[in-house]
Amino acid sequence: MAAASFTSRFKQSVTAGALRAYLAEFISTFFYVFAVVGSAMASRKLTSESATAAGPASLVLVAIANAFALSSTVFVAANVSGGHLNPAVTFGMAVGGHISVSTALFYWVSQMSASVMACLLLKVATVSQDVPIFTIASEMTGFGASMVEGVLSFGLVYSVYAGSDPRNGRSGPVVIGVMAGAMVLAAGPFSGGSMNPALAFGSAVVAGRFKNQAVYWVGPLIGAAVAGLVYDNVVFRDQASVPGETGV
Amino acid sequence: MAAASFTSRFKQSVTAGALRAYLAEFISTFFYVFAVVGSAMASRKLTSESATAAGPASLVLVAIANAFALSSTVFVAANVSGGHLNPAVTFGMAVGGHISVSTALFYWVSQMSASVMACLLLKVATVSQDVPIFTIASEMTGFGASMVEGVLSFGLVYSVYAGSDPRNGRSGPVVIGVMAGAMVLAAGPFSGGSMNPALAFGSAVVAGRFKNQAVYWVGPLIGAAVAGLVYDNVVFRDQASVPGETGV
Amino acid sequence: MAAASFTSRFKQSVTAGALRAYLAEFISTFFYVFAVVGSAMASRKLTSESATAAGPASLVLVAIANAFALSSTVFVAANVSGGHLNPAVTFGMAVGGHISVSTALFYWVSQMSASVMACLLLKVATVSQDVPIFTIASEMTGFGASMVEGVLSFGLVYSVYAGSDPRNGRSGPVVIGVMAGAMVLAAGPFSGGSMNPALAFGSAVVAGRFKNQAVYWVGPLIGAAVAGLVYDNVVFRDQASVPGETGV
Amino acid sequence: MAAASFTSRFKQSVTAGALRAYLAEFISTFFYVFAVVGSAMASRKLTSESATAAGPASLVLVAIANAFALSSTVFVAANVSGGHLNPAVTFGMAVGGHISVSTALFYWVSQMSASVMACLLLKVATVSQDVPIFTIASEMTGFGASMVEGVLSFGLVYSVYAGSDPRNGRSGPVVIGVMAGAMVLAAGPFSGGSMNPALAFGSAVVAGRFKNQAVYWVGPLIGAAVAGLVYDNVVFRDQASVPGETGV
Repeated sequence: MAAASFTSRFKQSVTAGALRAYLAEFISTFFYVFAVVGSAMASRKLTSESATAAGPASLVLVAIANAFALSSTVFVAANVSGGHLNPAVTFGMAVGGHISVSTALFYWVSQMSASVMACLLLKVATVSQDVPIFTIASEMTGFGASMVEGVLSFGLVYSVYAGSDPRNGRSGPVVIGVMAGAMVLAAGPFSGGSMNPALAFGSAVVAGRFKNQAVYWVGPLIGAAVAGLVYDNVVFRDQASVPGETGV
Repeated sequence: MAAASFTSRFKQSVTAGALRAYLAEFISTFFYVFAVVGSAMASRKLTSESATAAGPASLVLVAIANAFALSSTVFVAANVSGGHLNPAVTFGMAVGGHISVSTALFYWVSQMSASVMACLLLKVATVSQDVPIFTIASEMTGFGASMVEGVLSFGLVYSVYAGSDPRNGRSGPVVIGVMAGAMVLAAGPFSGGSMNPALAFGSAVVAGRFKNQAVYWVGPLIGAAVAGLVYDNVVFRDQASVPGETGV
Repeated sequence: MAAASFTSRFKQSVTAGALRAYLAEFISTFFYVFAVVGSAMASRKLTSESATAAGPASLVLVAIANAFALSSTVFVAANVSGGHLNPAVTFGMAVGGHISVSTALFYWVSQMSASVMACLLLKVATVSQDVPIFTIASEMTGFGASMVEGVLSFGLVYSVYAGSDPRNGRSGPVVIGVMAGAMVLAAGPFSGGSMNPALAFGSAVVAGRFKNQAVYWVGPLIGAAVAGLVYDNVVFRDQASVPGETGV
Repeated sequence: MAAASFTSRFKQSVTAGALRAYLAEFISTFFYVFAVVGSAMASRKLTSESATAAGPASLVLVAIANAFALSSTVFVAANVSGGHLNPAVTFGMAVGGHISVSTALFYWVSQMSASVMACLLLKVATVSQDVPIFTIASEMTGFGASMVEGVLSFGLVYSVYAGSDPRNGRSGPVVIGVMAGAMVLAAGPFSGGSMNPALAFGSAVVAGRFKNQAVYWVGPLIGAAVAGLVYDNVVFRDQASVPGETGV
């Protein structure tokens, strides 16, 4: 595998099986983004109708939508594409050598186009509503928000690694989903709680506003890469492959 | 199976095992509809008593009821009837050739009568309350709402296919339930978030109002059929049965 | 077993293994009742402090506490006592012949004393708060409320049977818990949504008010017995034991 | 094992495998504390912005964050460190002889430093917000609150034992998480619902206020030790190791 030329790696990325994986990523990412952005729009519609500000119930609404949607969409894609749904997860997998760079690029295209399509459908279907974009609290700096998003993404991608590890059984998708929900509940009002560059990108494209977009790319990509390296090389290093080591 | 005459297929649909399946569909659909429509009535009663408009907490209430009820009712029926509880799911299964047309018709009768019975019980038991029907937001067109319901149903039925696939383990019912909950959180205030013609039909019969009923049939049936065809023929096509193909 | 005299059956009910089962029922029922009644008291404290009436968020709070607590307490008791935690479930199991009458009586004593203890602890620990009892909506009759509680209990006990059936895998406790949560969301503001005579009994004893107590015994016991008989004899009848039958 | 000297036990506590376990405890405890304390800060920010008092929706927010985060963080650490994340759990395991005292001390250091780090990150990242500490209701005594925390911790640690028992299958982490969520819903407004000395310690260190800190240590440590002893020696005693006993 290490000796494969770029051409042969690229050919591996356009077989029928690979195309199925891209389609699975597209479908699952589409419904994940639809649920997260749609629930934020639903919350805004309901709070404006009842003349109340967005309070704790709005955050619960969006966080549960995130957890429920990520659990189910990761589950349905897991056996076909691995269920990334997130350019940061794919980046971490590429850094760790789990997928090739060319396959990762196709994953990114699938994820980002799915996110744009989901936001477009929401804008068209709801007629008069704007698509909300991820924003950071007014008192926070861009650097601080990016750091928080990076920490959140570390947690999410770490759970993706653990959830995909066959030694841990088959509840992985549910665990990944509830981790995302918990992170949104903790950081939603501060950094936005995206943890997913495709999610932030799709809503920004359809809304036409790219303010602070870098926050939702830099932090998550770094956090994801570090999480993958820590999981593979430190915490869950395959003990059998480390000669001379004594486990407890 | 393909050569079976209509009579022999019909006979297959009235064996003891098939009758058990219809009863299982009836019981599970009854409790699913009871939970979804009942939770909407509970929310309305609570908001009128506290003199607040239906806000985000009301949507969370109904969405969690939907997710919890669908997870458990699909689980209890899964090994007897497959746990459809939804004419759109049954339609998709019939289009894909997984069940015969005559069996599908009996499933539809079970599901729709269960839904009517559940709404009737709610109306009688709560004495003075009307049964709520599914409605679309005032700014949306019927076509737009039907399109949204179709997309939601695609997502739900896609997860039903993945959740019923033995290659994916046994958390299927929970995954199907949380997918439904996520879709309600995203689209509830816009298209109503029914995704299930029996659900919309039962409440409309008992309320006596059939406005926009077509929205909750056309979209879901088309979405379900497309989801089944995509799952069976594209994404999860059994690789062993495709000669000459090279997987990644 | 059918020929065993009462004395020998009674002796079976006081072995070390049986005593462990009663203790497991006591512990799990204690924490289940603690969570359900405690969450109702927490909700009342928070709504009085914020000067708002109990709205949808209060119902979500109690329903999630019910679902979470029942899932975990059934899980921890499942392999020791079967995880009934509910006199109605035990009654259904006795009617169906799954446990002996004398064992069922010991289960009832464990469950009811655990419920009283949990409510007592809540009353003592919270110092100034009354323990809430289950009540029915003012517009409903006792007969209607009992009928609703019976239907809810049918659904719950039916899911207990399906969840305990080894053919259905091991997610039973979670499924039973979310079914209870869904039923509370649907019927909480109407009949109270107890489904469990021990739960209603414990809070009534500590509060000293037994109004409508019969509602929470008659309906659930009938509903549970019917659910057990339907599950065992109709829906999930063991096909292998029925000679001459043709399954689909 | 019983004859091992302190030195040899200490050496067992600094192998590569043990260091991995401490790191796994650190990472999982960090994200658990981040979610619980962060969600309390998020709730406070949202209620102050919408000018409403903390009501039932705030408690639901924090309890769901607790349940979601504990489920996922226990899951990712389970196969490396056992997934304690809580000095009380570690204490109970040491009392029951499941881990050595020196290993337990290293676990404590990992858990408490992770909690302090998570609270520090929250304080720095949110710029202007104070870190909330656990408090008891004004009408309660310290003794009463400590008793309630002890009872809650008994329930949590009992579910940790049951969830870690291989005879109970692999849904343990989810069950442990929802048990914690249920306990928070029941006792949050009364005793705070920490159940975890590290959680209370970290927020107190960063906030600089140690009022009632003893409440969050005494009760949980006692409750955890009792839960472990009851589980191991009474309820789930391995029947095979008890000669002359007749099970039911």
